[in-house]
Amino acid sequence: MKIVPIRFANSELVLLDQRFLPARERYVRCRSAEDTARAIKSLVVRGAPAIGIAAAYGAYLGIAGAERVSGASVCAELRRVNALLSAARPTAVNLFWALERIEKAAAYTAIKGPAEQKKAVLLEARKIHADDKRACSAISRYGARLFPKGSRVITHCNAGMLATGGTGTALGVIYAAGKKIEMVYADETRPVLQGSRLTAWELARNRIPVTLICDNMAGAVMSRGKADAVIVGADRIASNGDTANKIGTYGLAVLARHHGLPFYVAAPASTFDLSLKRGEQIIIEERPSDEIKNISGKIIAPPGVHVWNPAFDITPAKLITAIITDRGVIKAPDRDRIAEILSRKPSCGKSGKKGE
Amino acid sequence: MKIVPIRFANSELVLLDQRFLPARERYVRCRSAEDTARAIKSLVVRGAPAIGIAAAYGAYLGIAGAERVSGASVCAELRRVNALLSAARPTAVNLFWALERIEKAAAYTAIKGPAEQKKAVLLEARKIHADDKRACSAISRYGARLFPKGSRVITHCNAGMLATGGTGTALGVIYAAGKKIEMVYADETRPVLQGSRLTAWELARNRIPVTLICDNMAGAVMSRGKADAVIVGADRIASNGDTANKIGTYGLAVLARHHGLPFYVAAPASTFDLSLKRGEQIIIEERPSDEIKNISGKIIAPPGVHVWNPAFDITPAKLITAIITDRGVIKAPDRDRIAEILSRKPSCGKSGKKGE
Repeated sequence: MKIVPIRFANSELVLLDQRFLPARERYVRCRSAEDTARAIKSLVVRGAPAIGIAAAYGAYLGIAGAERVSGASVCAELRRVNALLSAARPTAVNLFWALERIEKAAAYTAIKGPAEQKKAVLLEARKIHADDKRACSAISRYGARLFPKGSRVITHCNAGMLATGGTGTALGVIYAAGKKIEMVYADETRPVLQGSRLTAWELARNRIPVTLICDNMAGAVMSRGKADAVIVGADRIASNGDTANKIGTYGLAVLARHHGLPFYVAAPASTFDLSLKRGEQIIIEERPSDEIKNISGKIIAPPGVHVWNPAFDITPAKLITAIITDRGVIKAPDRDRIAEILSRKPSCGKSGKKGE
Repeated sequence: MKIVPIRFANSELVLLDQRFLPARERYVRCRSAEDTARAIKSLVVRGAPAIGIAAAYGAYLGIAGAERVSGASVCAELRRVNALLSAARPTAVNLFWALERIEKAAAYTAIKGPAEQKKAVLLEARKIHADDKRACSAISRYGARLFPKGSRVITHCNAGMLATGGTGTALGVIYAAGKKIEMVYADETRPVLQGSRLTAWELARNRIPVTLICDNMAGAVMSRGKADAVIVGADRIASNGDTANKIGTYGLAVLARHHGLPFYVAAPASTFDLSLKRGEQIIIEERPSDEIKNISGKIIAPPGVHVWNPAFDITPAKLITAIITDRGVIKAPDRDRIAEILSRKPSCGKSGKKGE
């Protein structure tokens, strides 16, 4: 089953509107950087790698219409557009990483004039998209080796086809492990319910056995001996391995440690932010209270009540068994091991034992 | 602010329908044991102590109409009625405890004839109600001493006025601690959202500062140093202190331990089941999948997806700092300390240091 959350054709970025899944398969067409920024902010598209890809195409849309300008002013226009896109969501580093790649592509071709620059920017966006697809494949192959036959796995949020340009990070691993996976417990992932609406939907469509649970049931799954491992994606990983991911990831990591279960993070190299020493430096997005107080217009809390709604939390590296990247598996992640693995060339994950 | 979730007058049991809170204040009138069993099963009334009280009145309604019967047949009729009420929900032991008291009251008065028996049964139901109110007061006073000025507390589900015949167990403690409480973080408590719909509502109406969070945010609250303690109610406590409470309680206890925070359980003596050696022996109710897949008719998950929906989990005694009862505080609960405190006479919690 193929799900195409991001498509670029005929000067349009077509995004599967993930807010309406699984009830409806609706698409949003973005024709400008503004459209794209709005789509990212409102969660039409979400998942760190997917946000990066969408932003790259959005940057292209932002300069594609700019006529009769010099090479230098394409760069200036791109900076304006990228500032807009950067402001859409603060935590996923892939967004900033992708926009940096786009800016470089424009700068390198400035001498050739606006037409060539635009071509180069679109090419770079397509390359970011294709690179992410390849990264998913590599992550999936490296990760699949970590799961023995009969594995029962808990996952949180959605780090699958809907969150990336490929088969996913955490879910990519599960797809690649295939028949070795006996059961995936999908946390519903409040407040936006990416687990029930997206992960359960995506896994079921791909015939992976899945059981939907509320976030607060993961402890009971573990204490009853129903789970063998936890695997999640990531939105930003500091140079020491501290990982920002969907709110609730940290609690899951503490539970996994308490039960002696391995806790895996799966993410491409683009999710690492080596400029940050520790997780505390990662900016955590706080989202509107309505996400918690309403579900599709239905009020589920007293109207005036105060709400705290952080979209992410930080899992310290010491709670992470391994980070599965497209360059290889970083066991017991720390600054040195991360630097070592990330310095490798991207691979397709076929390189046998070396990558582990 | 007074909330009256259970009222018995004019041969009617009037229950505040907690399924519609906070949007609507609607009442359900029960005129038979069948009505009452249905109300308990469908969560019109919930919370272990409240279930016990409602069941006691329900048992009375079941025999009140029985005419021209002997004392022995009132007892027989009561057994039939109680079997019906017992089947409504399996985990909260207060239900069985209350029905046992009712049966004894009928048996002791069998010799006096049906009319006297019915009177005795109603009297016993009213006594169960009044006893629970007193138990809440005692728990509240004992518990309040454990919270220093400026306390920031996480709670789960609803163990307040809506769950008991008094001011509550966990929330009773918070009300009694009053101005010493700087903030209560209320877990929304999926899937039935007792935290957002009931606890946040109840606390706000009583002017206690409250912040609503999703269940998966409690870890982030703790890791950011925003909480000093956790307090919850209980549905059944085994003789060794293992505690069944709303699903998610266990995960919260693991998190509290990881962060070195005290984890308190507040419950009346009627919540202890001394016939059970360990928590594993407690029957855990599994509820319909629709509770997770729909929110008020709105589909939030793929229709065919498999769901696991246990209503409770077991927190082992070793993760519990203290159980706050109406007989005193049981620190580091174990079989001996529990037996010792429960052997005390019920008190109003005014007895100073003795109760601790």
